[in-house]
Amino acid sequence: MPEARLLLARYVVPVRPRGVVLEDHAVLMEGGKITSILPANEAVVRHPDATPERFDHHVLLPGLINMHTHSPMSLLRGYADDLALETWLRDHIWPAEQRWLSPEFVADGTRLAVAEMIRCGTTCFNDMYFFPDVTASVVEEVGLRACIGLPIIEFPTAWARDFEAYIAKALQVHDALRGCALVSTALAPHAAYTVTDDMLARVAELSATLELPVHIHLLEIAWEARHSLQEYGMGPLQRLLDVGLLNERLIAVHMAHLQDEDIRLLAESGVNVVHCPESNLKLASGFCRVADLLAAGVNVALGTDGAASNNDLDLLAELRTAALLAKGVAADPCALSAGEALELVTINAAQALGLGETLGSIEVGKQADLCAVDLDRPQSQPVHHVISQLVYAATSAQVSDVWVGGRRLLEGGALTALDLPQVIERAECWRQRMVG
Amino acid sequence: MPEARLLLARYVVPVRPRGVVLEDHAVLMEGGKITSILPANEAVVRHPDATPERFDHHVLLPGLINMHTHSPMSLLRGYADDLALETWLRDHIWPAEQRWLSPEFVADGTRLAVAEMIRCGTTCFNDMYFFPDVTASVVEEVGLRACIGLPIIEFPTAWARDFEAYIAKALQVHDALRGCALVSTALAPHAAYTVTDDMLARVAELSATLELPVHIHLLEIAWEARHSLQEYGMGPLQRLLDVGLLNERLIAVHMAHLQDEDIRLLAESGVNVVHCPESNLKLASGFCRVADLLAAGVNVALGTDGAASNNDLDLLAELRTAALLAKGVAADPCALSAGEALELVTINAAQALGLGETLGSIEVGKQADLCAVDLDRPQSQPVHHVISQLVYAATSAQVSDVWVGGRRLLEGGALTALDLPQVIERAECWRQRMVG
Repeated sequence: MPEARLLLARYVVPVRPRGVVLEDHAVLMEGGKITSILPANEAVVRHPDATPERFDHHVLLPGLINMHTHSPMSLLRGYADDLALETWLRDHIWPAEQRWLSPEFVADGTRLAVAEMIRCGTTCFNDMYFFPDVTASVVEEVGLRACIGLPIIEFPTAWARDFEAYIAKALQVHDALRGCALVSTALAPHAAYTVTDDMLARVAELSATLELPVHIHLLEIAWEARHSLQEYGMGPLQRLLDVGLLNERLIAVHMAHLQDEDIRLLAESGVNVVHCPESNLKLASGFCRVADLLAAGVNVALGTDGAASNNDLDLLAELRTAALLAKGVAADPCALSAGEALELVTINAAQALGLGETLGSIEVGKQADLCAVDLDRPQSQPVHHVISQLVYAATSAQVSDVWVGGRRLLEGGALTALDLPQVIERAECWRQRMVG
Repeated sequence: MPEARLLLARYVVPVRPRGVVLEDHAVLMEGGKITSILPANEAVVRHPDATPERFDHHVLLPGLINMHTHSPMSLLRGYADDLALETWLRDHIWPAEQRWLSPEFVADGTRLAVAEMIRCGTTCFNDMYFFPDVTASVVEEVGLRACIGLPIIEFPTAWARDFEAYIAKALQVHDALRGCALVSTALAPHAAYTVTDDMLARVAELSATLELPVHIHLLEIAWEARHSLQEYGMGPLQRLLDVGLLNERLIAVHMAHLQDEDIRLLAESGVNVVHCPESNLKLASGFCRVADLLAAGVNVALGTDGAASNNDLDLLAELRTAALLAKGVAADPCALSAGEALELVTINAAQALGLGETLGSIEVGKQADLCAVDLDRPQSQPVHHVISQLVYAATSAQVSDVWVGGRRLLEGGALTALDLPQVIERAECWRQRMVG
């Protein structure tokens, strides 16, 4: 019989049903899954054999899901700031990657990213980078959950030399990871402007055959639509529509330049949008119309983007930015309420990954992916409204405990599956190497 | 002879000269002031009698100055969210204040606010609320620094019943606080739309006679200019100009609706602008043109606003939001670089308070108001650029130590001058009282 554990929390915010806050409730975990949610006093009587643990000042909520990362780029955090996207990519990031990209870089960068993400309450992330096999192996070793993007881009990198090689390697990694409990895969064409029509068509075909999500940067900057019109005689959305990519498997990241008709098209086709507010602000890319997308019925989730452009992987802070910015952009202080915002990093994200049945809320039968946030801090007091405190005032330093599939990865603020001083030392080694 | 203390830091960011990062440097504090800044190895030889303390993974920077707070409103944090400014004020905040406002409310709320602010590296704040005498006494008791606004508003409150009473009480508090080392005062007319022309003229006269700053909400929402045109036949800036308030003593908060000619007028008249990006976003008030103001030569500082509208007093997080948002609003990723942003919460704020000679940078002869930020965390590694890490990635939980006038108020993350559990307990008592 698997060990049963009973988490007794001051508040439980299950996300489903929407807006509910359970006071003094318990969550029972058995075999990595949530098997019961009930009042705390009843729980200790009904489950005397379960190991109890008290979270007297905490909110227990579903583990957060970061829907857009380039985790190894944590090693390039603050490497080049305050620059336009094109300059930043072409003159700084891509040259640095050309010089330093290797399995070792990816392993060390992913470890640093994963350390940061767990401490921020993240239990799953949707990644896009080179050497995805290495990222996947770090994720498995640590016990986190991830959807690993299989990169496809028109130029050669240390990972693959041409389109056929990108595809061959993608299929190889996909096969190797099949059946993993914690890691799934997605096809990850970089962007419409760095992938040809032929490549997009092949991605669409593979996505349909293998039932894989497609993770792509889309409509991030104004230049993109102009360039697409010149080059292809149509906008990027039309190109994706033509090759059959506009469907419920598409995870379209950024989407900071949307017309009303685009929003209708996205809603009709079931495309998932990932909003990256801090990256969009920092690179002055544009503003995603989050409130309009949600009103149209589009599934919207949230991502931090890579640490080279954000410059952190703090999804709780990103959630706060998203909740604030949506109101400013919509010119409506009622837009994206705290409760709606919380869905962007939980249930909506799970649905975008096709994992809405197993992740994204505290419901019986779902995976025990949870995090606890300690409200016993001045910035979270008094607790007039629990979800307001979570979204508008709590910081990631208040995340005390994190579980993935019932296994604890953060315990009272300390990482259980990573040697943090060593992770930081490796990051510092890379910095020294880069300054030469 | 006063005790000399030597703070040996991995990095010192003095803010002046602009953009400088000193590696392995020491700051000598004597008699509450900064008396030397020199390389660490030289410092220990030259000052053998000073008590040394090592901050091996830290940045030492000037204490942060929060230029717009309503500190007692921390007790109303999350009390009413996701509402329009007018509804929020008229249907929620003002009725709650009418019911609960008292010296006890102000004392308990200020203690909660001050606890939060110190932990975020704040050494000085510019407050505006009722019972300013109570706020001042809490500030003095704790040893923080503040500019206490003396409130003036057209309707009666528990603090004063009419204009003459507001003025009489303002003068009384001003007199009582004269000569305080830590507390200064400002006249604080609430807003152009809640203060008559006669009242504004009297404020202008008192400000000139007593050489007091004037702290006012201005051009926060679009309605304000429309209402002013209807009511007075001119915009709020013109009204303030006419009574002689547009000068270098004016601290104009929000300024989210500025035309080009307004910016020229502000620059010419030396008005100080306080930007509150998170409050403006949350209430969908509008967007302050920070990059344009700075380019025109206007002195811009930063405030969190009260915890009822933000919902925190975390100036380091506000700094990050300001740095990101300025780029989005200007549609320019080079706008408000990390180094420029840091000035908003340090030297620019000190200048707005008329205290630029004594606060706002680490310079010999200035007050020893400092804070240390620990970079030994995954989200701050690797340290390619120190100021980038501070502005774009560090969180307030990394603030380890805070000094005001050489006195330590935060030591290794623990408050030295406040009983935190008691402060939180009092906040919880108020919450219980408010729900009845």
